Amino acid sequence: MTAPGSLDRSLRERAAQVIPGGMYGHQSTALLPDGYPQFFSGGQGAHLTDADGRRYLDFMCAYGPNLLGYAHPGVDAAYIDQLRKGDALTGPTPAMVALAEAFTGMVTHADWALFCKNGTDATSMAMVTARAHTRRKTLVLAKGAYHGAAPWCTPRPAGTTPEDRANQVFCTYNDIDSLEAAVARAGDDLAAIFAAPFRHDAFVDQVEVDPAYAHKARELADRTGALLVVDDVRAGFRVARDCSWSAVGVQPDLSSWGKCIANGHPISALLGNDKARAAAASIYVTGSFWFAGAAMAAGVATLKLIRESDYLERIEGLGARLRHGLAERASGAGFGFRQSGPVTMPLFLFDDDRDLAKGFAWCSAMLGRGVYVHPWHNMFLCAAMTEADIDVALDAAEASFDDLKRNRAEIRPAAKMAFLTAG
Amino acid sequence: MTAPGSLDRSLRERAAQVIPGGMYGHQSTALLPDGYPQFFSGGQGAHLTDADGRRYLDFMCAYGPNLLGYAHPGVDAAYIDQLRKGDALTGPTPAMVALAEAFTGMVTHADWALFCKNGTDATSMAMVTARAHTRRKTLVLAKGAYHGAAPWCTPRPAGTTPEDRANQVFCTYNDIDSLEAAVARAGDDLAAIFAAPFRHDAFVDQVEVDPAYAHKARELADRTGALLVVDDVRAGFRVARDCSWSAVGVQPDLSSWGKCIANGHPISALLGNDKARAAAASIYVTGSFWFAGAAMAAGVATLKLIRESDYLERIEGLGARLRHGLAERASGAGFGFRQSGPVTMPLFLFDDDRDLAKGFAWCSAMLGRGVYVHPWHNMFLCAAMTEADIDVALDAAEASFDDLKRNRAEIRPAAKMAFLTAG
Repeated sequence: MTAPGSLDRSLRERAAQVIPGGMYGHQSTALLPDGYPQFFSGGQGAHLTDADGRRYLDFMCAYGPNLLGYAHPGVDAAYIDQLRKGDALTGPTPAMVALAEAFTGMVTHADWALFCKNGTDATSMAMVTARAHTRRKTLVLAKGAYHGAAPWCTPRPAGTTPEDRANQVFCTYNDIDSLEAAVARAGDDLAAIFAAPFRHDAFVDQVEVDPAYAHKARELADRTGALLVVDDVRAGFRVARDCSWSAVGVQPDLSSWGKCIANGHPISALLGNDKARAAAASIYVTGSFWFAGAAMAAGVATLKLIRESDYLERIEGLGARLRHGLAERASGAGFGFRQSGPVTMPLFLFDDDRDLAKGFAWCSAMLGRGVYVHPWHNMFLCAAMTEADIDVALDAAEASFDDLKRNRAEIRPAAKMAFLTAG
Repeated sequence: MTAPGSLDRSLRERAAQVIPGGMYGHQSTALLPDGYPQFFSGGQGAHLTDADGRRYLDFMCAYGPNLLGYAHPGVDAAYIDQLRKGDALTGPTPAMVALAEAFTGMVTHADWALFCKNGTDATSMAMVTARAHTRRKTLVLAKGAYHGAAPWCTPRPAGTTPEDRANQVFCTYNDIDSLEAAVARAGDDLAAIFAAPFRHDAFVDQVEVDPAYAHKARELADRTGALLVVDDVRAGFRVARDCSWSAVGVQPDLSSWGKCIANGHPISALLGNDKARAAAASIYVTGSFWFAGAAMAAGVATLKLIRESDYLERIEGLGARLRHGLAERASGAGFGFRQSGPVTMPLFLFDDDRDLAKGFAWCSAMLGRGVYVHPWHNMFLCAAMTEADIDVALDAAEASFDDLKRNRAEIRPAAKMAFLTAG
């Protein structure tokens, strides 16, 4: 197990003075093993360098944004070129039209696009658009699904009010009966059914969507006049060159996108069909940097690579190699090791490990060998990875399973994860 | 009056296909005179170039983000340098700590910073932090003040619910009695008093804050245990090198920032004092790009220029020259022409012009002479402007006042602005 380096420690001490809690949000290491670095000095291709100069093969990919490789030369050149011409101006640039055309040309259900900055902006605009379209209020959501961090959806309710969470009915993902019951509970007030493209909640195995569930959601939306929203912020373009539910033959009315659509440059989007166009035009949504050209030019370059390169087949091939190799090594070492979700967005959990003690120990051992993996959040593959990188990860995994086997008796659950086994 | 150029027209036609309503948000030209271009190809210093290659001296400064000049070489070099090292990574970069230190070192009331992407993110986090701190719900806000475009605050309520707007009590800006009455109405549930640094609502004259109002807001927050929030997203760093209410000797608990803090690169911030630190650490707020290094490095470079250059004295001098010169020319032409707000953020309204017919005609005439001014939203000066630029604007103004005088009889109100005089 590695200890954080001295520069990371000193940055954490300084951060503790000027950032509440030392760090916040999904990139805080508060719920990661102690040795995980908080600060990074750089990223190139599939690799990260931490503040102390240690290099890692990175299976988090910035929690999604890195699709084609960090500091991708082509995408970054498009960004910088547009930055030199004009980024945040008094109006949008032609890149906005080009990006909206490229997006609607690729995503089957989409007739229009609204661009914004956060994934949460896109999911919130989906909610507002659906309410404007239906003149109703109630949302059906799957329990435990993450749709952002605004008061209506943030997973930790501190500082939110019951009114922020009003007009929401919950179902269980992939459970058709519970979906029908939730829609029935919404009655004649149903505005939207929200769905993740597959279940990618934290701390639990991922689950592919049941095609019957997706079709039922479409049917219920059609029957009630509500809009169907697929939240593709996290998974978009890692399972299809289209909205993720295209793979099961279901087209939503609205889909939210973000993370990797400009390979890490800050932009997100709500896409919609003609049915929802008038409602989308009626709402007032905006942001200081939503019309800025540079991230849009980077988006145009990214979408071109998505359309024209074999990035998807490559990350699927690499993901399959990783999954197969890890399964072999885990079973060789005698561990029940569950790999869930699409191979391009894997999540690893050990059997009999509710407190994540094994997961923490194994991830720490991987980190010590230069492979950054996450013990409870889904990971991401990027197209800058190679078969040789995957083999490095598999060698590290084999050695880390061996460590775990040898040290099994001494492994203790992390106190900070006690909430997982409480109650 | 100019007609939009042919490239702008063709971009609008394409946009009408793939963007709801053709454009959305504050950068839509839907409520501007017909000749205003919707699309821009670039910006350099104080000048914009539209899609058809026409160049304008730009008094909108991207609605605020341009403080030091478009495409500022020093700030953009800092951005690009950090982009090449690492931007959106699996964790923050050291630039995040440096920016939080620089910000808290400059803003008197601030002990900590949270960074985000939209001004609305910052105002929403202020709301959530105040509710977490007080464990109460009610906000006191000034009627007509803009605090963002989320469901709780967007000025156009389509698609929002009564619950989104619950727990809000309104007062009249600068009216101490109405502020006291609003606080009394909130009773023992007051979480926060929100205030713009001065009244900068659209369509009406701007009004400097009455120092007695600011002090009363502080006193009421202290007496009730609520937090005082100054929303400096729009005005920050254009009236002080500190929170804007420092000028009247009042320190808030929280202040929201955005727009120009990285001279146009996408980043915003919530700053707070130690009283609010534990609450800020307790809320869950995050975004895919909130930890990205490049905009933070640009922020560090911008704050250094704010601290070390005379940008503020220069834009104040230029603003005074503009105000004085315009007053002279307007009165010479016989127009009642009101200039309100700080000289660095002017708003121009004609007397006897409720339908903005005169304002539209004069702004169109200015635009035709290469000066981009806005008929109903406050404008912004940037430090790349020179005295010669101001003199160009004054010459254009003189000629445009003459046009207006000559064509007075033929000026008709714009149909799209009929809502201003309805009811």
